[in-house]
Amino acid sequence: MSDHNTQRDKYAYFSRIQTRWMDNDVYQHINNVVYYSFFDTVCNEYLIEKAGFNPETAPVVGYIVSSSCQYLAPLSYPVKIDAAFRVNRLGNSSVEYGVAVFAEDECSAAAWGTYTHVFVSRETDKPTSIPDQIRQALAAALIHP
Amino acid sequence: MSDHNTQRDKYAYFSRIQTRWMDNDVYQHINNVVYYSFFDTVCNEYLIEKAGFNPETAPVVGYIVSSSCQYLAPLSYPVKIDAAFRVNRLGNSSVEYGVAVFAEDECSAAAWGTYTHVFVSRETDKPTSIPDQIRQALAAALIHP
Amino acid sequence: MSDHNTQRDKYAYFSRIQTRWMDNDVYQHINNVVYYSFFDTVCNEYLIEKAGFNPETAPVVGYIVSSSCQYLAPLSYPVKIDAAFRVNRLGNSSVEYGVAVFAEDECSAAAWGTYTHVFVSRETDKPTSIPDQIRQALAAALIHP
Amino acid sequence: MSDHNTQRDKYAYFSRIQTRWMDNDVYQHINNVVYYSFFDTVCNEYLIEKAGFNPETAPVVGYIVSSSCQYLAPLSYPVKIDAAFRVNRLGNSSVEYGVAVFAEDECSAAAWGTYTHVFVSRETDKPTSIPDQIRQALAAALIHP
Repeated sequence: MSDHNTQRDKYAYFSRIQTRWMDNDVYQHINNVVYYSFFDTVCNEYLIEKAGFNPETAPVVGYIVSSSCQYLAPLSYPVKIDAAFRVNRLGNSSVEYGVAVFAEDECSAAAWGTYTHVFVSRETDKPTSIPDQIRQALAAALIHP
Repeated sequence: MSDHNTQRDKYAYFSRIQTRWMDNDVYQHINNVVYYSFFDTVCNEYLIEKAGFNPETAPVVGYIVSSSCQYLAPLSYPVKIDAAFRVNRLGNSSVEYGVAVFAEDECSAAAWGTYTHVFVSRETDKPTSIPDQIRQALAAALIHP
Repeated sequence: MSDHNTQRDKYAYFSRIQTRWMDNDVYQHINNVVYYSFFDTVCNEYLIEKAGFNPETAPVVGYIVSSSCQYLAPLSYPVKIDAAFRVNRLGNSSVEYGVAVFAEDECSAAAWGTYTHVFVSRETDKPTSIPDQIRQALAAALIHP
Repeated sequence: MSDHNTQRDKYAYFSRIQTRWMDNDVYQHINNVVYYSFFDTVCNEYLIEKAGFNPETAPVVGYIVSSSCQYLAPLSYPVKIDAAFRVNRLGNSSVEYGVAVFAEDECSAAAWGTYTHVFVSRETDKPTSIPDQIRQALAAALIHP
């Protein structure tokens, strides 16, 4: 179970991200908050690159309803990291992503967590079924424990 | 149980925070990542203001080992928010904080979550008992469900 | 001239902002980048609160074309700051703001700078005359050296 | 002159940076503040990678005393950018960097600016001559108009 969250080969998609000077906090480590910006970045990138999602015009919008992170090892700028992405659970209108952060060339995660999106209609702001194109792309990233 | 997390009177300490223009994302809402900076801010403020903690010189340092957030309602700049703080659980070297975000003058939380600190020796980087002065201040913020 | 930029009574509008833990960098000071988020926040707040500007629906949008900052003294979380605002120069479609950051209760600025907005039509993305309601509010904040 | 600031071949060093979802503001563009974090990142990376600068232990520290940016064209996540760096002017204790942001594969800058560092002794906090190893690395990045 632990391996399922911390190993690189348990994830479906990766985004290489250069850390920034201001990511470091007073203890010389990437601040805990910043990990969520890595998660946020890889989730939206997957939707845009693989699911044809256009944040400006899509009839649906993904709202985050919960998120979590387990921090295993510190990282520091100027390290490059790989933000990792998979789908843990795919519902009718909601999806739980599995996310993790790996230092460049490392197989074992420095942090991992979850992100849950509920898709809502941009017009009514009400939960709505995940559109087919997005659902297919998300299904392709499902990795079961 | 839900009330225990979402009601203002279930928290022990508050920090009024002005949101910033860049906190808003493309959907005109405070980005999900930013909530953790509110949590981070109120936790450290409590340690500094109430527990005599000095981040530059203290012999112990608090490392975040896990965090989570449940998002209940959107917020938008220029709202002022109250970041709320309590202690959920106080161990030997670790402490779980309960945290929440309230829009100014609202009794019901827009988001709530948890933050877990492990205190380590600044010198050895190993977990260490929470020093007495900090422990007393944290004990004063314990609110049981 | 120096006084014109550094003294509190040379500014027209203020926004009290609580600094955040992650604003501090490895040198225990508010990172230089963060000052611009203070400037950005007070400029947009003035437009929203005093000029009836609605970022979601207004027919014009303000684009930043240049910005600058002079850093005079370091600040550190958990200080509260006052972001200060005035209008330096009011053109047909552009406006230069004078901005500064004061530690709470300090008369002399920790930093000051300039921000230049060009107003464009949301529809055409072309520069456009500043609408009357906004122009009047900006004119009220003009403070000449 | 304009060419000197906006053309890719007028810069000495580049850092590829993946933009982040939360970099985008309500107008779907990278927020003006974020450009300074790109500048900050490439300047410190040059010091660390090319000048042997260690932010934790070096006897000198670089404080930012002024910064500026000219914004020429909007950028949006998920674009990758190249943060560009050169030295404009090298003094005894201070150095002015020329910085710019290019969209991946673009020759013409989306933004350019300046950053001025004053080196101070970590112990006394007073300005100090730039140490030889750093000075040589900075001299190697001088590009005169």
